[in-house]
Amino acid sequence: MRRVAIALVHHPVLDGRGDVVTSAITNLDVHDLARSARTFGASDYFVVHPITAQRELVEAIVLHWKEGSSGKRIPARKDALALVRAVASLAAAYEALGGRAAIEVWTTSAAPDASALAAAAARERLAGEGPPVLVVFGTAWGLAADVHAAADARLAPIVGLRAEYNHLSVRAACAIYLDRLLGARE
Amino acid sequence: MRRVAIALVHHPVLDGRGDVVTSAITNLDVHDLARSARTFGASDYFVVHPITAQRELVEAIVLHWKEGSSGKRIPARKDALALVRAVASLAAAYEALGGRAAIEVWTTSAAPDASALAAAAARERLAGEGPPVLVVFGTAWGLAADVHAAADARLAPIVGLRAEYNHLSVRAACAIYLDRLLGARE
Repeated sequence: MRRVAIALVHHPVLDGRGDVVTSAITNLDVHDLARSARTFGASDYFVVHPITAQRELVEAIVLHWKEGSSGKRIPARKDALALVRAVASLAAAYEALGGRAAIEVWTTSAAPDASALAAAAARERLAGEGPPVLVVFGTAWGLAADVHAAADARLAPIVGLRAEYNHLSVRAACAIYLDRLLGARE
Repeated sequence: MRRVAIALVHHPVLDGRGDVVTSAITNLDVHDLARSARTFGASDYFVVHPITAQRELVEAIVLHWKEGSSGKRIPARKDALALVRAVASLAAAYEALGGRAAIEVWTTSAAPDASALAAAAARERLAGEGPPVLVVFGTAWGLAADVHAAADARLAPIVGLRAEYNHLSVRAACAIYLDRLLGARE
């Protein structure tokens, strides 16, 4: 089975008007994506933020659980947060996994795309041999176009059977993608 | 297709020692589960809390998005939060759906259970004719035993292919269950 890591990007992402912005760290994003990553066997969770003080906030959250009383109270949370690595850019995440040429980068989006990779096909690709895969999620209104353009694949959006609406939180979207890719099936 | 509603229970739920407690409302639970419910076509999202002031907090969050400036800024969020109904008990949620005898109640849990209903079988049951289904989620360490005992079915826990760990947030778990039950498949 191939190694799978995830990244949550705070820059470059889009705002509601489609402009490229930098979003703020959200505490529950750190926790929830770490817990989902740990549950589905991802190797690393890169929190990507270009601002040092924001990366320090992530490191403070992780340290609080690693060494503080909360980690003793809830050991399972400590195990999940051990996957978190704050990095300044996606390039730094690529380096940590062996370099851009040694990995595949798969982006995610709520928007339809004719060339998108269906989850079932992506799941099959992970079951075989191959380079590590970094699955990339965007905060705010999603990843900037440049991030998709530089990826090896873009995963198809998550759509419900009964509704046209898809405005999931990134916490929900990441959980569903990981389950589709790496969840056990009866 | 059968009507599906969801409920998020704050009492009776378990704490880390297995005692029955009442948990506090978390703002992002209100938002995230509403967005997941709306995406997957659930008809209602009942936030169950026995304390009046906590229900008023939920109603204030919803009203802020229904009538305040945020709803104009992000109309999609307003549409999701329109599904939220704060109720004092699961019994009140049953009444809102036509009464306990007129619905099926399906509970969720991270713990294995020999008689649990697999997601694929549950999905098939929803595609046909039948009474409305209320899918019930617990906060804190999960639903108290009485809630499971009074249900018509208990859904199988979410498990990863590659890990023994399952400590998902309720935001992540609800998203995955709804995708397994009501997500479009390629």
